[in-house]
Amino acid sequence: MRATVMHAAGNVRIEDVPDATIIEPTDAVVRVTRACICGSDLWPYRSMQPSDQGQRMGHEAIGVVEAIGADVRTLKRGDVVVMPFAISDGTCIFCHEGLPTACVHLGFFGNQGNDGAQAEGIRIPYADGTLFALPVKEDDALMPSLLTLADVMGTGHHAAVVAKVGPGRNVAIVGDGAVGLCGVIAAKRLGAERIIVLGSHPDRIALAREFGATDVVSERGAEASEHVRQLTGGQGTHSVLECVGLGQAMETAVEITRPGGAIGRVGVPQDAAMPGSKPAFYHNITVGGGPAPVRAYIRELLPDILEGRIQPGRVFDSVVDLNGVPDGYRAMDDRKALKVMVRP
Amino acid sequence: MRATVMHAAGNVRIEDVPDATIIEPTDAVVRVTRACICGSDLWPYRSMQPSDQGQRMGHEAIGVVEAIGADVRTLKRGDVVVMPFAISDGTCIFCHEGLPTACVHLGFFGNQGNDGAQAEGIRIPYADGTLFALPVKEDDALMPSLLTLADVMGTGHHAAVVAKVGPGRNVAIVGDGAVGLCGVIAAKRLGAERIIVLGSHPDRIALAREFGATDVVSERGAEASEHVRQLTGGQGTHSVLECVGLGQAMETAVEITRPGGAIGRVGVPQDAAMPGSKPAFYHNITVGGGPAPVRAYIRELLPDILEGRIQPGRVFDSVVDLNGVPDGYRAMDDRKALKVMVRP
Repeated sequence: MRATVMHAAGNVRIEDVPDATIIEPTDAVVRVTRACICGSDLWPYRSMQPSDQGQRMGHEAIGVVEAIGADVRTLKRGDVVVMPFAISDGTCIFCHEGLPTACVHLGFFGNQGNDGAQAEGIRIPYADGTLFALPVKEDDALMPSLLTLADVMGTGHHAAVVAKVGPGRNVAIVGDGAVGLCGVIAAKRLGAERIIVLGSHPDRIALAREFGATDVVSERGAEASEHVRQLTGGQGTHSVLECVGLGQAMETAVEITRPGGAIGRVGVPQDAAMPGSKPAFYHNITVGGGPAPVRAYIRELLPDILEGRIQPGRVFDSVVDLNGVPDGYRAMDDRKALKVMVRP
Repeated sequence: MRATVMHAAGNVRIEDVPDATIIEPTDAVVRVTRACICGSDLWPYRSMQPSDQGQRMGHEAIGVVEAIGADVRTLKRGDVVVMPFAISDGTCIFCHEGLPTACVHLGFFGNQGNDGAQAEGIRIPYADGTLFALPVKEDDALMPSLLTLADVMGTGHHAAVVAKVGPGRNVAIVGDGAVGLCGVIAAKRLGAERIIVLGSHPDRIALAREFGATDVVSERGAEASEHVRQLTGGQGTHSVLECVGLGQAMETAVEITRPGGAIGRVGVPQDAAMPGSKPAFYHNITVGGGPAPVRAYIRELLPDILEGRIQPGRVFDSVVDLNGVPDGYRAMDDRKALKVMVRP
């Protein structure tokens, strides 16, 4: 089969690899019908050291179950499934507590020898725990929005939950990428009163407004913080969603959080130490978040997608086939594409 | 009157200063009957640059109201009052929300021209908001425990609240100072199942056990983290109270927090950036805390002291008069005293 392999920064290739097969009795094999390029794929795309063997890429997918191992109980051949970015067994104490991204059998697609989703097929470890069967056909018109349940919609929702978004609370969102935009959807869905997006890309801001953003702050750094304070009577917002992962974004997040407020961070942190520790302390600001337990959020978010109340699939502004994946990486890296859907 | 003034690291003197008087109509003047030396007083004691004018010291007190300004409504001459470490007006939106340490008129005793409490008398700005009248006489036997409502008991409680301590949860406490020991009391009071104290000073550990600690970890650094993991089936504790403020303590706190758990930090952070950002992220650990809103906690904690259910006053192991204050600083700095009470 054909799959995406990254060999070094800027070097993404489509290659022939062995077909995905059942190895463990808890595995399934899925034919990928939709996958994505993720903002987090751009970190290795910008920094990966050359590697002969390379790394399989892609951790978001929807597909059709082609085969199941002897111990798979809840899935059957032909099921249309969404594949969250994390592998989880569905049975451990953390999975039961709703934190599958702390599963005792946690794994990540494209890492640790696991297949990547930017491919024709993929082996799914712990298929019962990892996959979620969807009540739709593989060509359903809602496919783009359903695909966001694999990562960006669940991740934006996680940031909002951790930041304690709710009715009567003001929210700021740092980052206008796909996760930030899904954070806007999540904040509105959870009842936020005022939703301020920090971003400057015109197309993304336009979409943020359609998703429910009430204000846009297009400055950066200290000027952005000052603008948010002006919009909030000098206080900052109750909740801040940090959807970037860079130190500057976290510093801004701390500066614009109201005393006693909460930051939900879902941007993969690029610094070993978190900036803003002292102001966060003196303002009694809570900082939480991490790899989103998106598998646990699907049950809550799915009805809103099926019934058309939210349309996170609108973050996709580009579609490629497998041969177009290297171009897709370039387009996202150049910020010419917001989020690329892959149809293998 | 006589008051404590710090002039440089290691240089604490008792000096004659102008009597405390009413300046603003919202002021009160309190005759100090009990004050404390605080662990946080040791930071300037170890690092203060020489200053001719010096800095007034002390931010915890109980005393008797001697005079009130024209606008003071809830207090009268003769009231026995506890003075939390922060000045707050009691009327702003943050005070109403239970976060007086974010008051729009926030001030700290001993700073910004405010009097210090290690003195015969003290001027109290925003007396209605800042002071809390106690239903006892000035020589009540419960005085030591009541005095902890000014800071350490409320601060330990804050750490426990932020760390989401509750029934069925395991708790670890980093630091065996007065705040850490009050954190043990708070954790037990809030129903924690298992309470692990990290500390090595025999007297403090003995007191921690009497307060309800179930386990003691006396190693440091990586060995301490390993021991806590051994005690918790490899997982770490749901809640961690960080009561030190040094980077190493925060790194340990992150290492011993269970995935999805929460850290309540009340040790004044000595680093601009918080260590442990990446592991905190990958484990979805929430980090919160800051200057404790102790004024807001008095109403909840006071009945337990008055009815003898908690005895935080046992953290005082030394009593001095004003002349003994410099010796008190030395004793705490040498870890010969846990917490020093001052009787001016």
